[in-house]
Amino acid sequence: MSAAAARVLERADELARLTEQPGRITRPLASPSLAAAMERVREWMEAAGLQTGSDALGNLVGRRGPAPRLIIGSHLDSVDDAGRYDGILGVLVGLAAAEATDVALELVAFADEEGLRFQSTFLGSRAFVGRLEPGELDLHDAAGTSLRDALGAPLGEPLFEGARAYFEVHIEQGPALEDAGVPLGVVTAIAGQTRFNLIFVGLAGHAGTTPMHLRRDALAAAAEFVLAAERLALETPGLVATVGELGIPTGACNVIPGRVEATLDVRHQDDAVRERSLATLREQAQAIGDRRGIAVDWALIAQNAATPCAPALIAQLAAVVAELGLPVHELPSGAGHDAVTMAEVTDVAMLFVRSTGGSHNPGEHVELQDVAHAIDAAVRFAEGVR
Amino acid sequence: MSAAAARVLERADELARLTEQPGRITRPLASPSLAAAMERVREWMEAAGLQTGSDALGNLVGRRGPAPRLIIGSHLDSVDDAGRYDGILGVLVGLAAAEATDVALELVAFADEEGLRFQSTFLGSRAFVGRLEPGELDLHDAAGTSLRDALGAPLGEPLFEGARAYFEVHIEQGPALEDAGVPLGVVTAIAGQTRFNLIFVGLAGHAGTTPMHLRRDALAAAAEFVLAAERLALETPGLVATVGELGIPTGACNVIPGRVEATLDVRHQDDAVRERSLATLREQAQAIGDRRGIAVDWALIAQNAATPCAPALIAQLAAVVAELGLPVHELPSGAGHDAVTMAEVTDVAMLFVRSTGGSHNPGEHVELQDVAHAIDAAVRFAEGVR
Repeated sequence: MSAAAARVLERADELARLTEQPGRITRPLASPSLAAAMERVREWMEAAGLQTGSDALGNLVGRRGPAPRLIIGSHLDSVDDAGRYDGILGVLVGLAAAEATDVALELVAFADEEGLRFQSTFLGSRAFVGRLEPGELDLHDAAGTSLRDALGAPLGEPLFEGARAYFEVHIEQGPALEDAGVPLGVVTAIAGQTRFNLIFVGLAGHAGTTPMHLRRDALAAAAEFVLAAERLALETPGLVATVGELGIPTGACNVIPGRVEATLDVRHQDDAVRERSLATLREQAQAIGDRRGIAVDWALIAQNAATPCAPALIAQLAAVVAELGLPVHELPSGAGHDAVTMAEVTDVAMLFVRSTGGSHNPGEHVELQDVAHAIDAAVRFAEGVR
Repeated sequence: MSAAAARVLERADELARLTEQPGRITRPLASPSLAAAMERVREWMEAAGLQTGSDALGNLVGRRGPAPRLIIGSHLDSVDDAGRYDGILGVLVGLAAAEATDVALELVAFADEEGLRFQSTFLGSRAFVGRLEPGELDLHDAAGTSLRDALGAPLGEPLFEGARAYFEVHIEQGPALEDAGVPLGVVTAIAGQTRFNLIFVGLAGHAGTTPMHLRRDALAAAAEFVLAAERLALETPGLVATVGELGIPTGACNVIPGRVEATLDVRHQDDAVRERSLATLREQAQAIGDRRGIAVDWALIAQNAATPCAPALIAQLAAVVAELGLPVHELPSGAGHDAVTMAEVTDVAMLFVRSTGGSHNPGEHVELQDVAHAIDAAVRFAEGVR
């Protein structure tokens, strides 16, 4: 599949030139560049013998054979100053699979997964399955344009007409496969996630005149909490916990911090583990605060349950990977994907492709051979699930 | 001395009404309100039989008897939105002592200790002893006015004409005396101080997709360091160490911190202890960084050696406090004072008065009885040192 993989990379390069910002890849919902990308993929779909259709949101579908089919999909929109593979790779590997086999299948290119323009979540896949909330059409972008006006036409009937399953190929967006030296990863679940704002309130004071034993230093308490969260996550398989923002609003070099504001992001593929871990962290924060005379305030920002991949599909995908002579590396996805929406209407499976250079930045990189493996796996998986 | 103490508090209230900002106390160098405060104190000095003089910077001196004398001094300028006792109390207690005894002495009211207007250090006392650097006249305030233009006249000869010793009474600016339940404190030294900017550089990454064991989290390293500094200071008598500023310049809830910027402020009355402690903290930061793959960069902001009070004067002051039937509580000053400058030209001693409500804010508070004790101590000390 090296020739097919090379074609995938060439097509990714071609789509990368379709952007709202010359010199960088920025392709938001309802933009000329996204419409051009969809149009190019439509041509490739039709050349592969798929019958195409689209909706007012801009989602594109290409179909072959009777419904319900296996849907292979991902998204063509991007973040600001993006790489060329996040989302795109899944659509192009699906296209390569459609070109390599003649089984019945459905290929979907979603028009909004990143939410760049409307600060939204999964507008593309949710419109595809008919699960946008009516009020979401009133969302406004930074220029004040509503989603309704940006689309220019009513949503109409959803494109979705049932499915045998949903399958998504995606770059890993993390270092786990690279670190393990493995080209492909079988996703077990998309992790559930909880985000909190935390405020630690102690007592500000003069850094020179307040003896250590009389301090109520909000930063020292926050520092203990940062390390407690790290320790719990290291000790809990699959858990990730991150304090990504932390600041001292009125901090000065010679003032003991009286107030620290921070965020906490906790993810796990098993909701019970995530919830238990959060309860533990709240207890630990309370204990730290009690010992130090620091009040700790928690405010929930966001919470999403985990999306498990279907056990039968996981097994099938693992078997395909093993047939290719590759190690079977199962891992959760710590980031959200269109599969989260699709899991509401059908069973889902996901295949990760080893990537380097990070994600959501121009350095995103995949190896030709890894893409060839992904196409092989997608073909065999599609032939098994059809 | 209750009547004298009541007069001190009344005079502090009167001076508090002299300000550049109605409703709050803000009295910078070379301002009409500072000139008015100096003029009022000059009247009180002359009524007490002192012969007054002043210099172009605005320092005021009142003298009685032949030089060299004991100089009792502090400052009348203030920070922005200040309390009514920082600096002022020392001048007014000195004035009350001059009113209560007829020994030879010299009372000084310095015109700039806080450095509010020119972001400077001890301009008043340094001009008094003739140790301003020529270039300092080119300092500019926020409005662009130079110190030279603000003064309007050349500095001329310094007022200082030698001294037996320098004695300063000051509110404690910390909670140590209040915590110990003691009205007065005998200062052993003004602590030396080192300030650093610290930068911790790790690797930013996706909070969901980067497993814990593959992270190089700059915040986790900084958190370890915050606690290491706190621990060392708790274990080292008299040491204070403070991380007062800490931030993640490009932090986001879902991004592992790749860079953390912080400050470190370390103070001790013994320079050798401070230097040894800093060496220990640098080793600990290095060890934390090596273990976590985090580079730690140190940039010196400022460094000042400690100013010891004269042992003979400490003993004399302690004896005076004991004669008053009060507990003798010796402690270092963690904040700088005019005594730092005066120590360059004579022996210095300082007496702290218990204060509540913090310092450098409108809540500064002293008890009448504590002020009475301070006046008693100043009178006896002046009679002993004359």
